[in-house]
Amino acid sequence: MSAEAFHSHLAALRAQVEAALAESVRRAEWPESLRSAVEYSLMAGGKRLRPILVLLASEVCGGHPADAMPAACAIEMIHTYSLIHDDLPSMDNDDYRRGRLTSHKVYGEALAILAGDCLLTLAFETLAGSELDAGRRVELVRVLGAAAGGRGMVGGQVLDLEAERGSFLAKLSAETAGAQDPDSAGVLNSCRNMSNQTSETRVEELTRIHRMKTGALIAASLEMGAVSAGASSERRQKLREYGHCIGLAFQIADDLLDVTGDAAKLGKTPGRDIDLGKLTYPALLGMDASRQKATALIQDACESVQIFGDSSQHLQELARFIVERDH
Amino acid sequence: MSAEAFHSHLAALRAQVEAALAESVRRAEWPESLRSAVEYSLMAGGKRLRPILVLLASEVCGGHPADAMPAACAIEMIHTYSLIHDDLPSMDNDDYRRGRLTSHKVYGEALAILAGDCLLTLAFETLAGSELDAGRRVELVRVLGAAAGGRGMVGGQVLDLEAERGSFLAKLSAETAGAQDPDSAGVLNSCRNMSNQTSETRVEELTRIHRMKTGALIAASLEMGAVSAGASSERRQKLREYGHCIGLAFQIADDLLDVTGDAAKLGKTPGRDIDLGKLTYPALLGMDASRQKATALIQDACESVQIFGDSSQHLQELARFIVERDH
Repeated sequence: MSAEAFHSHLAALRAQVEAALAESVRRAEWPESLRSAVEYSLMAGGKRLRPILVLLASEVCGGHPADAMPAACAIEMIHTYSLIHDDLPSMDNDDYRRGRLTSHKVYGEALAILAGDCLLTLAFETLAGSELDAGRRVELVRVLGAAAGGRGMVGGQVLDLEAERGSFLAKLSAETAGAQDPDSAGVLNSCRNMSNQTSETRVEELTRIHRMKTGALIAASLEMGAVSAGASSERRQKLREYGHCIGLAFQIADDLLDVTGDAAKLGKTPGRDIDLGKLTYPALLGMDASRQKATALIQDACESVQIFGDSSQHLQELARFIVERDH
Repeated sequence: MSAEAFHSHLAALRAQVEAALAESVRRAEWPESLRSAVEYSLMAGGKRLRPILVLLASEVCGGHPADAMPAACAIEMIHTYSLIHDDLPSMDNDDYRRGRLTSHKVYGEALAILAGDCLLTLAFETLAGSELDAGRRVELVRVLGAAAGGRGMVGGQVLDLEAERGSFLAKLSAETAGAQDPDSAGVLNSCRNMSNQTSETRVEELTRIHRMKTGALIAASLEMGAVSAGASSERRQKLREYGHCIGLAFQIADDLLDVTGDAAKLGKTPGRDIDLGKLTYPALLGMDASRQKATALIQDACESVQIFGDSSQHLQELARFIVERDH
């Protein structure tokens, strides 16, 4: 298959996702300001990586695209809510996302929080309201709930904030960092722990954070595509493995782009992660070893989906594309 | 049935709910700080009104209590997350809730937001992971999603914030309220509209807000009890009606308590709603007319559940208790 055919297939899937998401907002009976805030973030473009993964996984399992679309939309709703909440002043405090002002800069913090809550709820309502048989719908809710909650994405965000604050506080003296600030409660301890850690332990910690924070949702995308198509548990498992590998590779590629990327393409200031003292793969392993790790993960991903034979071509192409992209 | 027997039945149900909620937190594999924050809010006591309504509705439909417990826990998780998010500085900015510091005062804003997100997600995961047949589980997710999202609780909170800010901004001149503050964008218009409203229109607006913000979840509690028990659609409908009536009566009783209540019993400062310029029933209708409205709603509620005959006694007692309580 040519790269051109692959990219035109991705573009077609992306267009279907955009249309389905737009329809779900159009149909919703919400107060106008809430609709506007949800639409602003949900329809902001982006790569639509997760819903495309749902659709590709369903495809490789022989499923019908229409059956996978509710799961594709649900996962993008979860991803979008997490971006809105992560950008808040009390979290990452970002003013820009994909080159546009973040939700709370446009709508204020209160409406941004509520737009996130609305999207999180809508994701599960969308899964429950589909035309699939009840057994598949309930399984989709279960998989998404496990991936998005405290032992998945939300838990990963908690660990990430703690690691960041630990490393930030490590720069301050124990006198200035303080017991008065509830945000730093308990963090001083983990910061003392971190300074004693070997680099290997810190790579493990970073990998655990990413596996939860971004990997869980990407693996769930693939599993949900398989569930929508009624795939066997072996196929579900292989697609999950593929998801965890590309999820981590995607994160390493992101870290690398933060060092080498172009502000206009990224839609954010390069070097910001380093300025924030964030734990990143390039910072812990160096640039070359990070690139090698990403490449090895992509190989593992491609091996996981070999059981699908030739029909896994799209998934293999996508895995490679993830580490070669420039934004 | 004696009042004593009724209250001891409520106490028994509450104890079962406490145990099931504690178990769901104990079982969860989350980062320790997240577990602590979730537990702090979820296990803070409270009346457990919504889960008790789930169990009573299931009871009146002949369901087994164990079948209704996942729905009972899920609804309390949603209620708790909404309290955590509503208390945030950018929303109602409350330092105390039920006489204890609010989540963000103890854990910081970031962890409070994430604990809310975690509970919201866990609610749906709990429903999907129960032992009920898949058809009932998926229906529970659908009912809860509809009640908790943008056309229910979250939408009601958006309208409530806008109404409050509208009335706050009405006190300021158009020059000082401003285009610079994103929180007030679009609000100036609704504030101009409100000052032209008749008192009747404002009662309608207030009723719409409460129907969404608190009524939807209370009605869903009853409907979910019925769904858990596999009740007919007529019984579901009657229980929903009962729920909407007691939900509104509960809110009016809350507004009345804010004027007449005792700080120690309320766990908050009385008169706060009025100080904040909140739209309340006593402010719009006066105390006597508000009390009459609450009484009429309780009568309607009791009529709705007459189809259950003698077994509706608990629901009737509870309806009366809601307007007679002192905290």
